[in-house]
Amino acid sequence: MTIGPTSGVTKPLGFRAAGVSVGIKRHSGQSEPPLDLALIVSDTPATAAAVFTTNRAQAAPVIVSRDHLERSEGTARAIIVNSGCANACTGDAGMTAAVDMAAETARLLGCVAEEVLVASTGVIGVALPLERIRRGLPQAMAALAADQGSAAARAIMTTDPFPKEAAAHMVVPGNAIVIGGMAKGSGMIEPMMATMLAFVTTDAAVPRTLLDRALREAVDETFNAITVDGECSTNDCVMILANGASGITIDSEEGYFLFVGALKLVCRELALGIVRGGEGATKLVTVKVTGAASSEEARRAAKAIANSPLVKTAVHGGDPNWGRLIAVAGRANVAFELSRAMVSIGSIVLFRDGTPYDEAAPQAAEYLKNTEIELAVDLGAGQASSTVWTCDLSAEYVRINADYRT
Amino acid sequence: MTIGPTSGVTKPLGFRAAGVSVGIKRHSGQSEPPLDLALIVSDTPATAAAVFTTNRAQAAPVIVSRDHLERSEGTARAIIVNSGCANACTGDAGMTAAVDMAAETARLLGCVAEEVLVASTGVIGVALPLERIRRGLPQAMAALAADQGSAAARAIMTTDPFPKEAAAHMVVPGNAIVIGGMAKGSGMIEPMMATMLAFVTTDAAVPRTLLDRALREAVDETFNAITVDGECSTNDCVMILANGASGITIDSEEGYFLFVGALKLVCRELALGIVRGGEGATKLVTVKVTGAASSEEARRAAKAIANSPLVKTAVHGGDPNWGRLIAVAGRANVAFELSRAMVSIGSIVLFRDGTPYDEAAPQAAEYLKNTEIELAVDLGAGQASSTVWTCDLSAEYVRINADYRT
Repeated sequence: MTIGPTSGVTKPLGFRAAGVSVGIKRHSGQSEPPLDLALIVSDTPATAAAVFTTNRAQAAPVIVSRDHLERSEGTARAIIVNSGCANACTGDAGMTAAVDMAAETARLLGCVAEEVLVASTGVIGVALPLERIRRGLPQAMAALAADQGSAAARAIMTTDPFPKEAAAHMVVPGNAIVIGGMAKGSGMIEPMMATMLAFVTTDAAVPRTLLDRALREAVDETFNAITVDGECSTNDCVMILANGASGITIDSEEGYFLFVGALKLVCRELALGIVRGGEGATKLVTVKVTGAASSEEARRAAKAIANSPLVKTAVHGGDPNWGRLIAVAGRANVAFELSRAMVSIGSIVLFRDGTPYDEAAPQAAEYLKNTEIELAVDLGAGQASSTVWTCDLSAEYVRINADYRT
Repeated sequence: MTIGPTSGVTKPLGFRAAGVSVGIKRHSGQSEPPLDLALIVSDTPATAAAVFTTNRAQAAPVIVSRDHLERSEGTARAIIVNSGCANACTGDAGMTAAVDMAAETARLLGCVAEEVLVASTGVIGVALPLERIRRGLPQAMAALAADQGSAAARAIMTTDPFPKEAAAHMVVPGNAIVIGGMAKGSGMIEPMMATMLAFVTTDAAVPRTLLDRALREAVDETFNAITVDGECSTNDCVMILANGASGITIDSEEGYFLFVGALKLVCRELALGIVRGGEGATKLVTVKVTGAASSEEARRAAKAIANSPLVKTAVHGGDPNWGRLIAVAGRANVAFELSRAMVSIGSIVLFRDGTPYDEAAPQAAEYLKNTEIELAVDLGAGQASSTVWTCDLSAEYVRINADYRT
């Protein structure tokens, strides 16, 4: 199993993509018009699965895609995505626009509307410029190619500092399958913007129930284990298409485990890309919580630490502020035994069994100069563990999020 | 009922206080040594009540004060408080130091140790310099006076930009009672520092159960309704002493309501002082949530909005980013009906019944130039409401919390 960053959704067989500019994003006039419409097409109908935001204010494209997946019984030919406008909190007009965006794509592809999934990312509360999308769709159709995955990855960016692509290649007896993906996301995200989006393709054939299970399992340990600012948007979604073009079907227990392992690699690469490119981020932080009473509590404590502004600013400043890790673990509403707890930064233990080792703080400060940081807390309350990834909190995050409209 | 900011814990009859410098806080050598030991003494044994942090990593002084309150059955003569060291995560030595700090104060006052409450605020994980406190205590005893409340308020500060004091004067038939208080707090707080502390005194006589109930009721609507950065420290506590020196006893239903009303005024004044002086704060933000399914959900949604870095940075930048308010309400794990929801900034409605009124955004941007801001969200799901106070999130918060040790 190998993973390479050089390509994404068009790496598996039988997928084409395009990324074009249709005038949704503002641009200065001097620069090239930014890409803002992405299209992913499977040459044949693919098995499809998706997970959507748990935010109760769901954007129109989320509602429409969920409905299409149900009505098509998990089959899709294409995914159409725009950036620059989230089409969220846009009322009935927004629902109509999302429906029309899928229908027009289906008409050009010659399939039924339910076989097209739709996603949007950008400003909340602003009407989707449907006419521009409608006028731009033939251009996207014309640009569709098996080498245009990277253009599609750029077309879904908002404040992202770089595009996120990943692919895994998995050799199975007699053949090979490929999983490719792309993602965007940088905060909750751009001011008045929403969304973490990820799209994964594979040329394996995977029965719907297995594909669904594999996606949920992979997302739980990757996209659901990252946090930039603790915000969950109105548009978040991860979609996967499996078209079977490799001739390989995932139908055995062993095949499933290999497949889900490769899928996790791709999802983790994309998820860590989102954290590395988090708004204002300068460091990638891995938070490992052990000694928890349950997996749920381990995850809760790890998320509390990863979202703590005091922890994130300390990491940013290279301050070996281990007391904050204890304070956050103590307020995370999980079982926590101070007398058996342990805190370490990198491999440097700063607190163990109720006793501080503050004399190791200068060594920890030196370690914190790295750009990839590991923080570990043992809660002293059980055997469960969880790993979560986050980034530091910098003044640049504040600048990005305070100064958009003004 | 009147409230004045000019004095605090020594405003009620029968209380004296002191704030002295004993060498716990570092100082530059050129400046005056900073005050770091505060003492509050009631001339006669007072009825006492307290609420403590819910953090599971409780600091030694929290454990000792809780124990003393239990053993004295709610009676106290004095509160001794140091700043500059939290005495948290300090193991057995820390427990002994907290016990000794109370015992030495009791010895000098001529009372039993259980009648002294103790609190600490400052660096976590560093040993309390008990000898300096022991040597400084006679100086604090000598400085005790009925006009030294303000010195005590300064002696409990850490990163606080200003001291927090409040008092309320309440005329009851035939006489008057006074409630005074002081508080500190500015983040979770200073880097490697902990704690929100508040101390309230009154010359009313209040039976223990009523005092306890009044304190919990007041704290719930004031200190528990503020947030600077969502962090709950290892040392948080609010203590109240009622010595009866006014000759007035609170023993009727009507008296209780008057008393708790005045107590809320004092606590709110102190709590809002903490928010105004929040680390890096430039604006006081009132978050009002209405239309919730229950009081708990109203509070949860209001806290989620008040702790959202995207909301706090938008307010800081004067960005009328109403979509973020909806996105946070939607992820707050409360009943939320987008089609009946409403969002307003000041009195400007930006979203109602599923429809955006983004054209009002420039007017909202103008309003956001004020230093006191009101954000209101109606969840469209019920009748309950909650108000929470917070501050904006500025680059200065990051600077304060990133650069302490480095």
